[in-house]
Amino acid sequence: MAVTPQELFGLDNLPYGVFSIPGDPGESGEPARRRIGVRYGDHVLDAGAAAHALGSPHTPLLRAPSLGPLLAAGRPVWQSVRAALRDWLGNPAHRETVSPLLLPLHPPAESPRLTFHLPFDVADYVDFYASEHHATNVGRIFRPDGEPLTPNWKHLPIGYHGRAGTVVVSGTPVVRPSGQRRPPGAEAPGFGPSRRLDIEAEVGFVVGTPSELGSPVPMAAFRDHVFGVALLNDWSARDIQAWEYVPLGPFLGKSFATSLSPWITPLDALEHARTAPPRRTHPLLPYLDDTGPDAEPQGLDLRLSVYLNGTLISEPPFSAMYWTAAQQLAHLTANGASLRTGDLFASGTVSGPEPGQRGCLLELTWSGAEPLRLPDGEERAFLADGDEVTLTAWAPGPDGARIGLGEVSGRVLPAR
Amino acid sequence: MAVTPQELFGLDNLPYGVFSIPGDPGESGEPARRRIGVRYGDHVLDAGAAAHALGSPHTPLLRAPSLGPLLAAGRPVWQSVRAALRDWLGNPAHRETVSPLLLPLHPPAESPRLTFHLPFDVADYVDFYASEHHATNVGRIFRPDGEPLTPNWKHLPIGYHGRAGTVVVSGTPVVRPSGQRRPPGAEAPGFGPSRRLDIEAEVGFVVGTPSELGSPVPMAAFRDHVFGVALLNDWSARDIQAWEYVPLGPFLGKSFATSLSPWITPLDALEHARTAPPRRTHPLLPYLDDTGPDAEPQGLDLRLSVYLNGTLISEPPFSAMYWTAAQQLAHLTANGASLRTGDLFASGTVSGPEPGQRGCLLELTWSGAEPLRLPDGEERAFLADGDEVTLTAWAPGPDGARIGLGEVSGRVLPAR
Repeated sequence: MAVTPQELFGLDNLPYGVFSIPGDPGESGEPARRRIGVRYGDHVLDAGAAAHALGSPHTPLLRAPSLGPLLAAGRPVWQSVRAALRDWLGNPAHRETVSPLLLPLHPPAESPRLTFHLPFDVADYVDFYASEHHATNVGRIFRPDGEPLTPNWKHLPIGYHGRAGTVVVSGTPVVRPSGQRRPPGAEAPGFGPSRRLDIEAEVGFVVGTPSELGSPVPMAAFRDHVFGVALLNDWSARDIQAWEYVPLGPFLGKSFATSLSPWITPLDALEHARTAPPRRTHPLLPYLDDTGPDAEPQGLDLRLSVYLNGTLISEPPFSAMYWTAAQQLAHLTANGASLRTGDLFASGTVSGPEPGQRGCLLELTWSGAEPLRLPDGEERAFLADGDEVTLTAWAPGPDGARIGLGEVSGRVLPAR
Repeated sequence: MAVTPQELFGLDNLPYGVFSIPGDPGESGEPARRRIGVRYGDHVLDAGAAAHALGSPHTPLLRAPSLGPLLAAGRPVWQSVRAALRDWLGNPAHRETVSPLLLPLHPPAESPRLTFHLPFDVADYVDFYASEHHATNVGRIFRPDGEPLTPNWKHLPIGYHGRAGTVVVSGTPVVRPSGQRRPPGAEAPGFGPSRRLDIEAEVGFVVGTPSELGSPVPMAAFRDHVFGVALLNDWSARDIQAWEYVPLGPFLGKSFATSLSPWITPLDALEHARTAPPRRTHPLLPYLDDTGPDAEPQGLDLRLSVYLNGTLISEPPFSAMYWTAAQQLAHLTANGASLRTGDLFASGTVSGPEPGQRGCLLELTWSGAEPLRLPDGEERAFLADGDEVTLTAWAPGPDGARIGLGEVSGRVLPAR
């Protein structure tokens, strides 16, 4: 059954992005002006123009060229802006004003298509490793004779900092990275284009409200600080990563590109997707303990799909993630590290218990030993030049409806 | 022999910082206006005011509240501004104009002292691990039965991303971080204030000119992209780090605070400090090879000093670093990762071959086994609450003079 854009992006969703219209001059005459857009069905509402036309007090926030000011404004404002948008789009009294400000995502051939931009300046980017299935598979592949999980894995959400400056918006081509990699059995490394280019299907969380240096953010304050979620593809060069990552972690194997979906879905649109995380097998320290009788369910039932050149290759369930985003935020700040508006932290590869639910090629092909067969007869152990990868997702909404998370897509260009 | 501030901060040095004068209202009435300062002896030149008074075309860059615009302006502008500053401060014809704009660092008791700020917005922060002596000592401490260096160490400068949002300016107090740490022999971790709080004496490099995504920056372009250097203390909680860092590297053991000196010394002030790095024991891949007959020496002869509560505890020589900053930049971008203005990359702990040249307490006390004895009779394995750590450095200048790098200082506050 096809799900319509009207259902995926209805009044209960209303994700935010930043777009421009090619040919639309900026204030100073040059690059096309960036505008905040809100997705509604197959259209994008020019939110700043709507706010202005309707005399909203939120006009300055919504006429900004980035989501930054809105993110920084804090949860009461997020809720007030969301309520206003539902009124503008849902109340027939505003139809005449709002209709001309709804721009089609798929305009007639002669009209320019909207361009989407990274919707906010990424401050710090942190990547977690929160799927037990992923971590176990990776452990089995890399350390076949050892315990698949390291001793710390069940006690803390393992994470590390990535490169904020190379987070790019969906649609940005990804140049195959070159780097050092040591072929099996060789003494010294060689240098050249990665031969094991991979994806990682992840969910990113966007911080709005900052926190003070020295003050941890408890799990209970998660919704005061985190604005929303976005799909994320953490491109990974497995051969570069394998040679470099001991002892200080992944670096160039990841830092060449991280793709983010253009739409940031507010947490308030995902209330019906909240679900209990998997049963905790080890006692948790108090700052991470979400097993108490009063604990609110902080898991999220997001259904991801991974497409390689249009073929569905995996359906990772986010509900299977062992560590929740609330635990990740509490851990990230447990040492007093401060948050800034625009901080982005990602879940780590989303993999479920079944083979068809694995979120990266390393797992899906078992490190290349079991290549994927595509409909055109080609095989893939890792990505080939020209390959296009797209992640999509949806979540349960009210009354059995679906909340769409949009997509994050990228095509591999040959190494330079 | 005491070295005077006039020698350390003469016309051949001229480092940049950002300061404010308490009580000096900002443009909009509130927090004291931030100004770009240039250190000259015991004084700070209000560089924007001087540029304005002398009708310089660089006035907008120098009246900015941050070094950002100057960093972004590129090397020809850096050189032109530096030449102008030497003229303004050195040419007697300008004395009458410039003298009132030289503010004392140590004003009379009744006058407000200048406040120093982080001189630029840190974009991405990367920390390397470039001292062979440090890496060898750490390897011996943590893996007494294995090879001290990992197989990749002599082939690439190992690095990882740190938290840009918790880089703080010298003088900012450092709250002792809490976190998970597993006592020796225990099965499960506990949570509490770090018991092994340490320093790392490092040198940071500040990127000015950005680079394009997908385009590596070769070693030869180092001086086109890197503006200058600053002293850096990479505070480290060894117990938190030891429990968390396998397999994805250091995270909360480092991300609570990284202190930066207020003065950024332009690379052009360090021409006399250039020196050949240590002999390379392994052949290097072409993008890192600095052994050719035409290779310019890219090491830097910086003499660091580490003080604990005023007592000199170590004198790490930067000239002993195996990997140069030019190699680090070439490696950092070898996969096509782009640079942004304000990127900061640090050398890693600077340790020399001698015991008195080690750049962190982990090495200086051999993981606590050989505590330091301070003049007041106290012992230190790691830092105690109230301890103050100060790093200073100087470099050879022209005609036997010294170029001062200022200092980076911080005091440990008890855990909250």
